[in-house]
Amino acid sequence: MTQTLDFQSIILSLQHFWAEQGCLIWQPYYQQVGAGTLNPATSLRVLGPEPWNVAYVEPSIRPDDGRYGENPNRMQMHYQFQVILKPDPGNPQELYLRSLAALGIDPRQHDLRFVEDNWESPALGAWGLGWEVWLDGQEITQFTYFQQAGGTPVDPVAVEITYGLDRIAIALQRVHGFTEIRWNTAPQGGNSLTAGDVNLQGEREHSTYYFDVADVERLKKMYDLYEQEAAACLDKKLVLPAHDYVLKCSHTFNVLDSRGAIGLTERQAFFGRMRELSRRVAESYLEQRQQLEYPWLQEDAAASAAAVETTLPSPAAAAAPAPLLIEIGSEELPVGDLAAALEQLRTRLPALLDELRLAHGPVRVQGTPRRLVAYVEDVAPGQPDLEQVVKGPPADRAFDALGQPTKAGEGFARSKGVEIADLQVREIDGGRYVTALVRQAGRPAAQVLAEALPGLVASLRFDKSMRWNRSNVAFSRPLRWLLALLGQQAIPFEYAGLRAGSRTRGLRFYQPEEFTIQDAAAYFRFLEEQGILLDAEARKASIQSQVAALAASVGGQAADEPGLLAEVTDLVEAPKALRGSFDPTHLSLPREVLISVMKKHQRYFPVFKRGGQTELLPYYITIANKPATGSQPFEGGELIVEGNDHVIRARFADADFFVRDDRKHKLVDFLPRLGTLVFQARLGSMLDKSRRVTALVEALAGTLGLEGEARATALRAAELCKADLATHMVVEMTSLQGIMGREYALQSGESPAVAQAIYEHYLPRYAGDALPATRPGLAVSLADRLDSLSGLFAAGLAPTGTKDPFAQRRAALGLVQILLAGEMDFDLRPALQAAAQHLPLPASAETQAACLDFIVERLRNLLLESGLRHDAVEAVVAAQRHNPGLAGRAVHQLAAWVARPDWHTILPAYARCVRIIRSAAPGEAAVPVEPSAFVEPAEQELYAALQQTEQAPRQPGSVDDLLNAFLPMIPAVDRFFEKVLVMAEDPQVRHNRLALLGRIAALAEGVVDFSRLEGF
Amino acid sequence: MTQTLDFQSIILSLQHFWAEQGCLIWQPYYQQVGAGTLNPATSLRVLGPEPWNVAYVEPSIRPDDGRYGENPNRMQMHYQFQVILKPDPGNPQELYLRSLAALGIDPRQHDLRFVEDNWESPALGAWGLGWEVWLDGQEITQFTYFQQAGGTPVDPVAVEITYGLDRIAIALQRVHGFTEIRWNTAPQGGNSLTAGDVNLQGEREHSTYYFDVADVERLKKMYDLYEQEAAACLDKKLVLPAHDYVLKCSHTFNVLDSRGAIGLTERQAFFGRMRELSRRVAESYLEQRQQLEYPWLQEDAAASAAAVETTLPSPAAAAAPAPLLIEIGSEELPVGDLAAALEQLRTRLPALLDELRLAHGPVRVQGTPRRLVAYVEDVAPGQPDLEQVVKGPPADRAFDALGQPTKAGEGFARSKGVEIADLQVREIDGGRYVTALVRQAGRPAAQVLAEALPGLVASLRFDKSMRWNRSNVAFSRPLRWLLALLGQQAIPFEYAGLRAGSRTRGLRFYQPEEFTIQDAAAYFRFLEEQGILLDAEARKASIQSQVAALAASVGGQAADEPGLLAEVTDLVEAPKALRGSFDPTHLSLPREVLISVMKKHQRYFPVFKRGGQTELLPYYITIANKPATGSQPFEGGELIVEGNDHVIRARFADADFFVRDDRKHKLVDFLPRLGTLVFQARLGSMLDKSRRVTALVEALAGTLGLEGEARATALRAAELCKADLATHMVVEMTSLQGIMGREYALQSGESPAVAQAIYEHYLPRYAGDALPATRPGLAVSLADRLDSLSGLFAAGLAPTGTKDPFAQRRAALGLVQILLAGEMDFDLRPALQAAAQHLPLPASAETQAACLDFIVERLRNLLLESGLRHDAVEAVVAAQRHNPGLAGRAVHQLAAWVARPDWHTILPAYARCVRIIRSAAPGEAAVPVEPSAFVEPAEQELYAALQQTEQAPRQPGSVDDLLNAFLPMIPAVDRFFEKVLVMAEDPQVRHNRLALLGRIAALAEGVVDFSRLEGF
Repeated sequence: MTQTLDFQSIILSLQHFWAEQGCLIWQPYYQQVGAGTLNPATSLRVLGPEPWNVAYVEPSIRPDDGRYGENPNRMQMHYQFQVILKPDPGNPQELYLRSLAALGIDPRQHDLRFVEDNWESPALGAWGLGWEVWLDGQEITQFTYFQQAGGTPVDPVAVEITYGLDRIAIALQRVHGFTEIRWNTAPQGGNSLTAGDVNLQGEREHSTYYFDVADVERLKKMYDLYEQEAAACLDKKLVLPAHDYVLKCSHTFNVLDSRGAIGLTERQAFFGRMRELSRRVAESYLEQRQQLEYPWLQEDAAASAAAVETTLPSPAAAAAPAPLLIEIGSEELPVGDLAAALEQLRTRLPALLDELRLAHGPVRVQGTPRRLVAYVEDVAPGQPDLEQVVKGPPADRAFDALGQPTKAGEGFARSKGVEIADLQVREIDGGRYVTALVRQAGRPAAQVLAEALPGLVASLRFDKSMRWNRSNVAFSRPLRWLLALLGQQAIPFEYAGLRAGSRTRGLRFYQPEEFTIQDAAAYFRFLEEQGILLDAEARKASIQSQVAALAASVGGQAADEPGLLAEVTDLVEAPKALRGSFDPTHLSLPREVLISVMKKHQRYFPVFKRGGQTELLPYYITIANKPATGSQPFEGGELIVEGNDHVIRARFADADFFVRDDRKHKLVDFLPRLGTLVFQARLGSMLDKSRRVTALVEALAGTLGLEGEARATALRAAELCKADLATHMVVEMTSLQGIMGREYALQSGESPAVAQAIYEHYLPRYAGDALPATRPGLAVSLADRLDSLSGLFAAGLAPTGTKDPFAQRRAALGLVQILLAGEMDFDLRPALQAAAQHLPLPASAETQAACLDFIVERLRNLLLESGLRHDAVEAVVAAQRHNPGLAGRAVHQLAAWVARPDWHTILPAYARCVRIIRSAAPGEAAVPVEPSAFVEPAEQELYAALQQTEQAPRQPGSVDDLLNAFLPMIPAVDRFFEKVLVMAEDPQVRHNRLALLGRIAALAEGVVDFSRLEGF
Repeated sequence: MTQTLDFQSIILSLQHFWAEQGCLIWQPYYQQVGAGTLNPATSLRVLGPEPWNVAYVEPSIRPDDGRYGENPNRMQMHYQFQVILKPDPGNPQELYLRSLAALGIDPRQHDLRFVEDNWESPALGAWGLGWEVWLDGQEITQFTYFQQAGGTPVDPVAVEITYGLDRIAIALQRVHGFTEIRWNTAPQGGNSLTAGDVNLQGEREHSTYYFDVADVERLKKMYDLYEQEAAACLDKKLVLPAHDYVLKCSHTFNVLDSRGAIGLTERQAFFGRMRELSRRVAESYLEQRQQLEYPWLQEDAAASAAAVETTLPSPAAAAAPAPLLIEIGSEELPVGDLAAALEQLRTRLPALLDELRLAHGPVRVQGTPRRLVAYVEDVAPGQPDLEQVVKGPPADRAFDALGQPTKAGEGFARSKGVEIADLQVREIDGGRYVTALVRQAGRPAAQVLAEALPGLVASLRFDKSMRWNRSNVAFSRPLRWLLALLGQQAIPFEYAGLRAGSRTRGLRFYQPEEFTIQDAAAYFRFLEEQGILLDAEARKASIQSQVAALAASVGGQAADEPGLLAEVTDLVEAPKALRGSFDPTHLSLPREVLISVMKKHQRYFPVFKRGGQTELLPYYITIANKPATGSQPFEGGELIVEGNDHVIRARFADADFFVRDDRKHKLVDFLPRLGTLVFQARLGSMLDKSRRVTALVEALAGTLGLEGEARATALRAAELCKADLATHMVVEMTSLQGIMGREYALQSGESPAVAQAIYEHYLPRYAGDALPATRPGLAVSLADRLDSLSGLFAAGLAPTGTKDPFAQRRAALGLVQILLAGEMDFDLRPALQAAAQHLPLPASAETQAACLDFIVERLRNLLLESGLRHDAVEAVVAAQRHNPGLAGRAVHQLAAWVARPDWHTILPAYARCVRIIRSAAPGEAAVPVEPSAFVEPAEQELYAALQQTEQAPRQPGSVDDLLNAFLPMIPAVDRFFEKVLVMAEDPQVRHNRLALLGRIAALAEGVVDFSRLEGF
């Protein structure tokens, strides 16, 4: 093995590489910046229309990441290598991969992946879409297409590549942490130094300074001075000096933050102030470049003007039906976008073909992260000719009385391209009109497809889409090639600056990257040889069987992980499972931590001891993007496994570090820190929230039947329920919230019941998750959700459209699920009122009502989704919306009643009572029933039956109780209507009868609104 | 011609080069620093005993150098490339020169010179010795051996090489200013950018910010906060965070300074505060490394332990007298040190040979900046044997009464290595002692020289000397080789880590760099072939003739420039004159500016029109270090001339810029800026000073006979005399003070007389310079000097030893010269008193007296140096010290009298009167003369003569008038002493006679003290 590059050689190699690509090599900035993005060489230069290609090192300072030099990967200063390519050169991924090769990373020996990761900096008014780049499981680069900066669109789009030099060096040199990175290579016998030699002391000292020494008052004063100075510079249009002060503001804020000195309201204010300054800086910069008339634009514009315009060839007509193959090649699509795009194609392509009048056979749409492929069998060589009768003006206006064509008649004929003589008069809808028979000749399929396919691609929509080049079209990720073949004929069209043709690309790093194919059969053969599995189901099956085999070979089995499996399936084109291992001592970590790290962070399949899903084995299985099949199946993979082993080792070491560190304190000791975690600006910190939840649990204790120990447990759990959010482990992996809380609570000597309630209060976390099993857990869970919902609605933050940043849908769904599951009698109205009482801001009746509506909507959906009759749901919800638990039970009961064969005898009896009331004049039924005023015996009889029914014991909201009580009355009801004329002349008699029926109608109040039922 | 490197490739090449030399490649610092030295990779890492080799770019921020991007070379940000080599690798100059070659600079085609330049940063408690490196006249690098940093010695010494990247790029790319520097090279057709593209806007904006926008109050607050934060860090021993804040202090101070916001007392206070912080940072860093037990030291120490100790061979004895050749090879010696070393060798080598008892012929000592060479003819092959009689104890104690040797006798014999029988008794100084005849065998010359030569080298002393390697010896600059040959035999000795031998080095860049020679003859032949002129006189002559020829070839002539000639002679080993030219339009600049730039900055000979020294031609002559003779005489030099042309063009463009800029204001407008220029902390600003000078001119106007217009002129000139110090041109070139003042005064509409007086007030500037020719000029000149001297003495800043930072010797000398030249009657006592009255601090009688003494000392020296008799000078100075003008005249007069043949008749007459008075009892002559009490006619006669003499008109202080008046009295004096017994019995008579003689003695009071004359 040859000597790997030392740290400084990595930098020099990257500088050389990018210089050769035409990048200007720039220097780190003379201010403390959190990332290379803040260097004006990025944050300003990406603005405006001018081209800009630059590369530079940036030692990036993030006070909060300081770990006193004790963490292998986390440092207050890490080294970034920043590249900006503007405009997109068309192949930035390939350039990037070549740069890795220049560092000695052979991509064929490693597993290199582009994993969706989008970037946003509200403080800079900036965002972009892109990926993390993974090298054998380690994130080594951030790759982003900058869409917006300084609050304005980045146009042309800039590609930002940010290498994590420390991580690359660790991976490349196969060392265990930053202190071991070999920095230089001294000549014979000299002292080679490590990053630890030169930077460890700095990590210790700066961490100490940032966390323990920095003087808050002084730093706040500095911040103010910087801000004022920045404003003064902006007033004079001094962009760069102003930017410098914004950077000083930003760093000072970061130090204050790591000192834990930023209060809630302050934080928002700080961000607002910095955002405003950044916006003004960007604005001034743009103005300035405009005034300078964009000096760097000229040559570039000239070069593009020189590009020769060519016309597309017109495809010839084919003779016989042929298969149609369309491949849309892109940079790695996010998992969700891949599925969405395939789904859209499956709908739209057949529709398009039909619209184009192209006969065709079956349509098959499949894809991988890099290609969306549609295959249509037997597409007709052309459209059939079309004959259409077109309606013209009325016959008497097209021809005069003499039968001579008028001007209107002539005009119509001309406009349709037919002779006057060919016009025919027809009777249409009872009128007489001239008509023309218009014949449209069918065009060759290739021609109409060439015209239509751009529209097909353009019609694909994504949650987030991006622009990347001059074409300014939007897509999930940049499109890089288009293939369209009808039989053996290429369908020429242009889209997104690409020209469709017969070239495709293979699996990354496998030859040939570009390949011309003859026809669909050759295409599928090519993919097969490359080991690419186009069909997601095939990939999924391959992964499952490979994972199972690898797990079995160490006496284990993989759990059923449908979510992970689906995700991984759409992360690769060619799945190759590889098994790695980790030090069994890590098995002492909480199981959920291990699983979380493996699944969430690394997309690994954990391996359990055969026969269960509780005991982990010290193995994991990763799915590399390598051919398991095809002409060059991937062998070996030791390097990939070694890299992944290193990553998981570091991750587990981190987790060990965090858990050890967390365990130094009792769970309750983390509470004060919650004061620095914002729940929401106007609703206060997480500490405020957990206090409110505690108060609410207390208020609801009676309702929820909590007494004695259970009540004490619930209160203690409420107090501690959010404490783990301040622990290292949960800060690091949010998905472990509740899990770590339970763990740490037990460690801290809390009772198992409290620990369990802490864990349960997050339940259910996702659809299908377990629900709180204990009363205290349930109480805290309800209180937490009620507080969130009432508070956020009161703060005017109700979810709108698809926006739901506080996950209120999930909160409301969980709330409803819990209530439904227990069929709990729980009235949301007083509960929301109780919640509102503790809020730091007023909750108006309207917001409370809106909140209730929102929860009811979830209830309605849940009931409908469970397959219940729509009318039954509506009937119950109309009456019991405020009490989901009872409503749920009622709907089920009602549904059962409706399904009874005698239902047609029950409902009408009740309905007659109600209907007549409703048709009466307002107020006519609003008198007390006066038994002495009854005229007919049927009245008496009904009244007696009613009294019986009214006295029957009924559970609140129970449809069964209602109807079982009502059933015996039915004969009396029927007789009543037989014998009695309700609408008697005598008002008193009439009113008394209506009042009697009103009492019957009222039996269903608060239980069900039968009028919503079909057949009412 | 191949493409020259672009800016980023220059950086990459240097990084590669130094990485290959084992340097760690570091990054620019994340703070605004004024120089790479402030990066902790230098300022801290050079401290302590550990080795450290590092190289990095440092964009250096110097607010005061901002020029709004309008100056070709001056920017608020320039790019340094910093290299630290610690310890000295033994060949840092060679490594440096190789790095230039790596940039494509062929040293044989260029003129590369090491020009003395020492570095000091009081704020960092740091200093070092070294050079500016010149490339074809352009300073491109600072090369320093760091002697002290953070107030502690740098041990081992660190070599600091600071490349000026912008200048190197300008030279290499042959462009005209920083904006034209090609930064990168875009691939085919792309946009290559210049430094102007990426940095010009920054220069404009930052200059504007630093000079016009930065808010003084806010910056002062920032400074205070930084300082407090630095102190807080230091209290916790957080070295790096503290250093960061010191850097912030430093930058903030610089910004305040460029805003003109630093007052006088403030400036000193700021410096003191920063120095103290820096000191504490350094101290803490050293402590820290010590506590870490110097982790980088081990391997290095082990490596040095492994070095094999060898012994020197013992030289054999020679047979016959042979020439001795000694060559001490060094890095380029400063001009003064070269002369001093040669002078010392000329004295010490013969003395050493004599002391070593080595007979020898003539000694010749010569040298160049790189070698000190001694050549001694006919050195004896060995010492003669030595016989010495050694005195022992007294004979009667060495032998007992029986003649037997005592223990003392035996001991003496043993100690001298002789037999008892060989002891002899001799009579010495009247006593009888045993003696031994001790014979010392002569040793071979080579042996004794080998032992003695280290001491010879070590004995050389310099004004400033330095250490550079483990040997820790001191020298002017590092010694790099030693040659010592006696005949053909090498004299082996070790010094400064070098072993002397028979190897020498040739002219830089000329092969062979190292060369073994057989004997002295071969040595001189070698030098001749190399074109090296060892003899300074030969170099001087060569320069003179080359310069004359080159000047003549363009119809010009060079001025006689002895100072420049001497300096240039000692800057090169092989002088090669080259003629360059500049744009004749620059001739419109003030002549003094042009000459100053050429001579002072560039060491060029200006070329005047033939026949005068007033009209310049647009040429200059530079002396390159290239062989004009020898086996490979240098031809061409176009590249060198082009480079120098560029430098002079840039310099003149700068001057043009400055003068144009200065001319935008009237001279008087610069006065307020003088408030920011410190004269001396306790004595205020230059503005304060010029106000004092004006007041003093007013006070002295009467004394100096200034009236009417002359007085007004003097006062106006005094007011404006320092104004030009605030102009760009003078800030840039201090030597133009007065000259620019005159120029700008005329431009501003001041009268020619005022302009002239402004110019003249600096006269005389050096020995032999002109003196003020006008009364106003003279008045301001005197007042300026009186103010300086009285003020500095009052402030306790009298010069001590060789220290004279305020050039008070020069001030006093000038003062005296002016007074002498005009034979002015000017009493220093009231003048100093008047000066004292305007000072901002009290001037005690003692400091005033000391000041007067200091001036008188200069007077005495000047008179003596002009060849006047010592006794005459003393006689007059004793009487007229306070009035140098009259004293000077008086000394000349007295000297003439003393030279008269009849002087032996004049002096005794006067002397008799004085002597008898002095021998009388105190008070005896202190009575009024009572004519009625005269007894003898001779008394009467003398009294009458005295009255005559006393009434003769006399100019103050005039010896002539005194003696001419006295001459007629001499017969009466003689007669008086013949006839009269002065010391009569009768006290009244005696006292009267003594009083008469006292009146005669008093004639000389305030004129001369004859008693100081020889023969008195």
